[in-house]
Formats: sequence, C-alpha cells, structure tokens
Amino acid sequence: MTTYKRLVLASRPQGEVVPENFRLEEVAVPALNEGEVLIRNHYLSLDPYMRMRMEDVKSYAAPQALGETMIGGTVGEIVESKNPKFAIGDKVQGMMGWAEMGVSDGTLLRKLDTTHIPLSAYLGSVGMPGMTAWYGLTQIMQPKEGETIVVSAASGAVGSVVGQLAKQRGCRAVGIAGGKDKCDYVVNELGFDACVDYKAGNLVGDLEKATPKGIDAVFENVGGKVFDASLARMNPFGRIALCGMIAGYDGEPMPINNARVFLTMRLTMRGFIVSEHMDLWPQGLKELGTLVATGKLKFRESVSDGLASAPDAFIGLLKGKNFGKQLVKLI
Amino acid sequence: MTTYKRLVLASRPQGEVVPENFRLEEVAVPALNEGEVLIRNHYLSLDPYMRMRMEDVKSYAAPQALGETMIGGTVGEIVESKNPKFAIGDKVQGMMGWAEMGVSDGTLLRKLDTTHIPLSAYLGSVGMPGMTAWYGLTQIMQPKEGETIVVSAASGAVGSVVGQLAKQRGCRAVGIAGGKDKCDYVVNELGFDACVDYKAGNLVGDLEKATPKGIDAVFENVGGKVFDASLARMNPFGRIALCGMIAGYDGEPMPINNARVFLTMRLTMRGFIVSEHMDLWPQGLKELGTLVATGKLKFRESVSDGLASAPDAFIGLLKGKNFGKQLVKLI
Repeated sequence: MTTYKRLVLASRPQGEVVPENFRLEEVAVPALNEGEVLIRNHYLSLDPYMRMRMEDVKSYAAPQALGETMIGGTVGEIVESKNPKFAIGDKVQGMMGWAEMGVSDGTLLRKLDTTHIPLSAYLGSVGMPGMTAWYGLTQIMQPKEGETIVVSAASGAVGSVVGQLAKQRGCRAVGIAGGKDKCDYVVNELGFDACVDYKAGNLVGDLEKATPKGIDAVFENVGGKVFDASLARMNPFGRIALCGMIAGYDGEPMPINNARVFLTMRLTMRGFIVSEHMDLWPQGLKELGTLVATGKLKFRESVSDGLASAPDAFIGLLKGKNFGKQLVKLI
Repeated sequence: MTTYKRLVLASRPQGEVVPENFRLEEVAVPALNEGEVLIRNHYLSLDPYMRMRMEDVKSYAAPQALGETMIGGTVGEIVESKNPKFAIGDKVQGMMGWAEMGVSDGTLLRKLDTTHIPLSAYLGSVGMPGMTAWYGLTQIMQPKEGETIVVSAASGAVGSVVGQLAKQRGCRAVGIAGGKDKCDYVVNELGFDACVDYKAGNLVGDLEKATPKGIDAVFENVGGKVFDASLARMNPFGRIALCGMIAGYDGEPMPINNARVFLTMRLTMRGFIVSEHMDLWPQGLKELGTLVATGKLKFRESVSDGLASAPDAFIGLLKGKNFGKQLVKLI
C-alpha cells in the first residue's frame, strides 16, 4: 500500500451534523523517521465527545482543526517499525483518528493483549468508554450497597458498564434508554434491575416506579428532560457524575430546570473528562479487563463497514440509532 | 410580664409573601418545669431560608407548621431559670422563633460572651450566617491564593463574610449586589476587589470586566440569571458552593441555562445546609469570633424595631431591601 484513506473535517456543523461536514481524502503513506511506527487501523471508535470538538468554542480541549484528520481512538496492528519498543504484528491502541493508517512515535500508544479480550473491546469496555464509566461510578458516584443508581443512555458503551459495575457493588441499577429493544437488552442481557424507555411518553412517572426508594447517584450522559427527571427523584446527599449532555450537542438550549433540588437535597455534581485522570487507568482497566475476560461484563457493538461509512455512523450515534458501542471496521 | 407576643404562620404564601401570611398573638408566659429556662429575646434573626420553610414541600427540613411560632434564630437573656447550667442574666443564643420570649430545656442553647463581640453579631458574622460563609468557602470552594472568587448577595449577612474571608486567604474577591450603594459598601468598606451591580443592566459584561482571569470558585446565594452569569466565566475545575437561590423562592422557574459549562469546565457544585455540619462550628466560630473581636471582619445590620415589624422586614429581605444582616430588635 502506498496510499491510504482518511476523513478530515471539511466544515463545522450548523446545528445537526451532516455528511458534508466531512471529506474523504486519499493520502500517501509517509516514510518513517527513526523511532516511529506505521499502524494499520482495524477499528475506529465513534464517540459523542467528537461532536463537541467539531465546534469552535471554549471547552476542555482545542477544537478539531479544519482540513485535518478527525480525531478518534483506534485499535490496529504495527505494519512497519523503526521503534525498538514495537514489533511488526503488535496490536496497539492509539488516537490515530478517522484514517486507515497512521504514524506514531509511540507516545500514548498502548500494546494490547488479545488472548482473552477481543481487539475491539479496547475501544469499549476495556478502553476509554469503560474507564469513563469506572471513573464516574467509583470516584464521583461512590455508591454504597443497597443504594439506587440511575444511568442515562444505559445501553451505550459507557452506560452499559456503569450499570453492570453498580450491580456488582450491590446497588439497584436503573437505566434510561430509547426504545423497548434497548430497554429489554439492558434488563435481560446486562442485568439492570429496571430500564425506563424515555420514548414511551411517561418518563417522569415510569422513573418514579423504577426508583421506589428514590435515587442516590446519577451518571448523566444525556441532559435536558432526561436529567431533570432524575433530579426530581434524588435523595439527600445524592451524587451526580456529569459525563455528557448529548441532547444539547447540536446547540439546542438545554437548561437544568430542577435546579432547586441541588439545594434542597444537598446534591453534589461534578463534570469530568476521564483522560485527565490517567493515574487511575491502570486500576480501572485491571478491573474492567478481568470482568470482560471472564465474561462478567457484557457489551454489544454496532459495527459499520469501511472508513467511508464513518460519517453516517457518527450521525446515527448522535441520534441514538446505534445499539451499544459504535465502531467502524476498517479491515 | 405575664404575657408575651409571638408571630405564627397563618397561611402559606401563594407566590410572594404577604403580611397576612403571619398572625400576631399574645400568649401567657408559661410556668417553668425543672430544667427549663425562660428567655427574653433581644434580637430575632431574619434569614432567606425561612421562605422555603413556609412552603409545604419536600426539602431538607420539615415545613413550618401552620398556627405555630415562626422558626428563627434569636439572642437574648435568661430571665428565669430552673436549670443549674444557666443563671439569670446569662446571654444566650437559641432558636426561640419570632417571639418576645421563649422556654428552653437548654438543648441547643449557647451561652454568649459579649465582652468583645456585640450580642447581635451572634446572629450574623459569628452565628449561622457567618458559619454558612465559612463552611462554603473553606469546605467547598477551597480557594487557593491568587484565585478569583465570586459571591452573589455580596453585601448580605453571608456574602459579606465570604468575600472578607477570601481576601484574607489571598484571593481576588468579586461581589455581585443590587444597587450602587451596596456595591460601594462592598468595595470600600468590606474591601472586596470589585462588585458588580446586577441592577445596572450589564451584568454579563460587567462581570467579565471584574474577573479578567475568569472565576475559580463561586458562592451562590441568588440563582437564575446571576448564577448563569458567573457560570459563563468559570475556569476549569471551578467549585461552586450552592447556598441559596433566593431569586426563585416565590416559585418562579429558575433554570440553570449554562448547564453545559459544568461539563466543558469540569465543575463541581455542592448544595449544603450548614446546620448539618455542626462538627465544624467550633473551628469556624473561633476564626469568625476572633476576626470580629479584633475588627478585621466588618458587618452591617438592618434593624427593624419591635416584633410587629418582622413580617415587613422579612418581605423586604426577600426583595433585597435590607442592607447587611436583617435583624428585629425586640427590647
């Protein structure tokens, strides 16, 4: 191969993301310098945070540059190496972006053991989404046995892990998801105690039924009305891990209407970005890896085929059309 | 004296509090049982939290009962004692409510030393409001030297202490208050670095000017647009002590519109009630008492005269008509 394909950000979205915001390019495979490796990416991870990076606004990270390869986590294989730490055939996880290949000097590249864990899981339950769930649950929500926790986007890459980890800690785990299929999966496959279908039209009432003892901790991925519904059920001294507000990523106003509850129930809420807490990754990944390898942590993947499918798959993810972790298979 | 006056809650407010929500009654001074004391109240404290207690809703405390003496902190003097721990003439702080006299078995009654600290200050800077400021600042905001803190209702009993304590810790202290007189007082008398007049019509722009390095921690008393303005200026890892949302106490919707900032700036917000942290009162009151006794912590009082003036004074407090700590002088 002398060339490979990549997707660059062609324009910033005005409201909803459209396929035209991306441009497929074919570029030459570069010659390696000393210390570098060439990686053939097998899977590309698609994640909601990418939507925020597409905006040119003040946030926790610099905006994605126009004309550059879209950022993103990848897993793949070393196909050429001028770095003694990596051999051809090594499986690695990195941030190579929306591209079939990539060059790295080894920084932030992690060698993967696929003996007991499938390669793609390192982009999901044993990767950034899993760590996001682990961090929010263990460091912010800190649930005690017998407490009720609620997680929105419960069938997704992050939410599914939150609920399963909470169950293992003796909690009542309640999910919120869109549609009967996702809710059935969350309860029957993932083992949550209950799941509320926010599309069924009775979110507040259904969540009340699913949380007879109120809510002690929330993992929030959605924001807006979904978050307000959880706030209305909070118990005193409840904790909220604020991970995402996907309902507002296209610029819709997304107020927290139940603000008073923070005061009356003495709630603690913390927004977080898991990549700022790398010191805890070894501890978290050890637990997550063991659980996946032993079949105790279940996950589901939506896999689209080929790099050119990434824009549509990403747009679908933002609308909740995926079911579980959204991946793009590149090889 | 064989009778004394008290104010009871006659009805719950429908929106704004009106004088008719209270009823003045004359009741007999009761005979004391063994272990009890009779207190003649000198000052009654009026505080925003009382507004929430007037509602019959789920909150951190049971609602104020109809037909019962309105709750409230008081300072006064023992005028009769069947409790060996208290002598006639002892000055005490208690929760005797909106009444000229009260009977106590000594529980929650605190003997006061008025050698260096005026009696009324035990309802302000060296009492619950001061402790509220101290707790929010030291336990939640945890400001470091050189950081910028913002406090709303900055000229009030709580806000004035927040800013002065922050200044002593080497912070830039910025207040938000209503009107030029209050803002001048906050800067010139209390020593804040700046104060923004939210009534001047340019809250967002003026706050931006007053916080050139952004905001690291907020003490929020008001909610609504005032809080949204502060949120828009938050720096990464900012902390928010949520003490009150007086802007919404009459039932107005009071959304947090800048909700996304919690995520992009990884903010931590905690609602709190200082009476749930009594273990820290000795430590806090020691600092506050020393500062007041040595003239290093300044405060101002609005004093209305006589128990019958309490309803109007309270209604004024809710509208920001007070200037500093609102008291009712009973004797």
